[in-house]
Amino acid sequence: VNVRDLAPRDLVALALDGDRRAVGRLLTLVERAGAESDLVAELTHPLSKRAPVIGMTGAPGSGKSTLVAKLVAAMVEARAQPAVLAVDPSSPLTGGAILGDRVRMAAIDDAAFIRSVATRGHRGGLALAIPGAVRVLDAAGYAPIVIETVGVGQVEVEIAATADTTVVVVTPGMGDAVQANKAGLLEVGDIFVVNKADHRGAGDTRRDLELMLDLSHVTGHQDASYRPPVVLTNALDGAGITEVMAAIEAHRRHLDRSGQRAIRRSLRARHEIATRVDARLRSRLGAVLDAPGQRQLIEDVAAGNVSTVQAAAQVTRLVLGAEGADRPC
Amino acid sequence: VNVRDLAPRDLVALALDGDRRAVGRLLTLVERAGAESDLVAELTHPLSKRAPVIGMTGAPGSGKSTLVAKLVAAMVEARAQPAVLAVDPSSPLTGGAILGDRVRMAAIDDAAFIRSVATRGHRGGLALAIPGAVRVLDAAGYAPIVIETVGVGQVEVEIAATADTTVVVVTPGMGDAVQANKAGLLEVGDIFVVNKADHRGAGDTRRDLELMLDLSHVTGHQDASYRPPVVLTNALDGAGITEVMAAIEAHRRHLDRSGQRAIRRSLRARHEIATRVDARLRSRLGAVLDAPGQRQLIEDVAAGNVSTVQAAAQVTRLVLGAEGADRPC
Repeated sequence: VNVRDLAPRDLVALALDGDRRAVGRLLTLVERAGAESDLVAELTHPLSKRAPVIGMTGAPGSGKSTLVAKLVAAMVEARAQPAVLAVDPSSPLTGGAILGDRVRMAAIDDAAFIRSVATRGHRGGLALAIPGAVRVLDAAGYAPIVIETVGVGQVEVEIAATADTTVVVVTPGMGDAVQANKAGLLEVGDIFVVNKADHRGAGDTRRDLELMLDLSHVTGHQDASYRPPVVLTNALDGAGITEVMAAIEAHRRHLDRSGQRAIRRSLRARHEIATRVDARLRSRLGAVLDAPGQRQLIEDVAAGNVSTVQAAAQVTRLVLGAEGADRPC
Repeated sequence: VNVRDLAPRDLVALALDGDRRAVGRLLTLVERAGAESDLVAELTHPLSKRAPVIGMTGAPGSGKSTLVAKLVAAMVEARAQPAVLAVDPSSPLTGGAILGDRVRMAAIDDAAFIRSVATRGHRGGLALAIPGAVRVLDAAGYAPIVIETVGVGQVEVEIAATADTTVVVVTPGMGDAVQANKAGLLEVGDIFVVNKADHRGAGDTRRDLELMLDLSHVTGHQDASYRPPVVLTNALDGAGITEVMAAIEAHRRHLDRSGQRAIRRSLRARHEIATRVDARLRSRLGAVLDAPGQRQLIEDVAAGNVSTVQAAAQVTRLVLGAEGADRPC
């Protein structure tokens, strides 16, 4: 049977039975957004097994993908059934995910589930697709679920921050610790990994991170009962992988003991609701701005005849008013 | 007289007379957002002298700041009066901009206007502040206005894309050309600069870029009448700066000749209106989600009792309905 011919309800039933093609098809539906995506969300929502979600983020070139591959292999060895969602920014040009390092994972692909999620240049789309994809994988029994993001932009930070445990990967030298701080990664990281520890400057980068974390701890920006560890690794030869696994486990225990897990799950729920509503409001806004009646307004702003403040007030009224008109008085 | 004691209207009058402290104060008001920011926008909107806006973006460590400093020095030498808005991501931890390379610019600070804009972790805030700041500098007679963004996140790309001319800076090696493509920079760049051209691999990076640009040109994602040039530079010793200046001038001529300038200005106006409306809708959304009545809904979603799709529909009705209630029937 071709999974493309199956309805979401049948796909979910197959996914629960361990059918990998059904899982893949559900993820495709989730990525596409729209009515079928919403239906998949409705179906998988009550099926959560509460799999731990681990976010991995860091600058391009930090060896993050290799590190993820090694961690997933270690998880498989420990009899877990992990899944990886690799969030690849992709341009309209390529029309899909640049798989890149994914091939390295081929060897462990049988035991784990690996999936590249393309952003398709659509910010809101990605923010919506990720929680939906996590829910599909969670329902299908995969655990833990690793979300790997490329880059240290605000979107990547945001996605990483929705995980139960966020791992920030930096490399020695080039002020990477300072860059991580600038990008706001210091606040979201639960575990810091200095990869390529055989490179010059690994000790310095670790010291920079420890210093900034101490400062952050003192000023109270972090959960006071937990101080993120800094782990040195060399993903290529596997050095430090055991320590990262132990750090993830220690953070998991902390989450349960401190009640932080429940707090994070609520924040994640709030964030997902907000993203969905925001997407809907934006789509209304786009429709208003694209209406022929607003073309002149935009030209007036471009020409300097109307201020953006005035134009924005007018457009806001139109966005909100459209719904008001539907409601009975 | 202390500029802090002056009203926006008086500050604008002083700024038009060349008072740098008044310009600085107006930029501070714009960054803060709120009623005074809106007033500054209203006052400066009709005063635009249509200064060219040049966006400069690229990965951290690409030597972009040094390049900007050299370009600005060359502009000053050519009797222009440039201004630079350096967009620095800053964490709540540091509470302000990390000035970093700014000190290198001290030498040219008398002839040009240099300003770091902190993001304060607030995405919408930055997207609103930049066009407002450009308008202040434009009204005050600065031209061209250079917007320098750190990092290659979507926000940075978005900001760079609102310029008349966008310069993308990459460095040799580490797959920088591929990273630039992944980050969507290939579509927004009007000029590509391979800085640190004395480093190994500069030729390869250039070839990679040329290849991808040719491909992009063929598939029609770029303006068909313009093919972005790739320029090799070494900002440290000034090599290639003249070529970058010439490329900026050539692009300026293309914009005027092709009518693209007017198209870009309309897109920018639309983008700024959308950002303002979006900020307002988001603030309404935040208020709805923070209301005591929604706390249970969020917990229900976190517990898996209510789906996010259902919760989002309910919250959307509340966000839109609040305005409807204000309107007379």
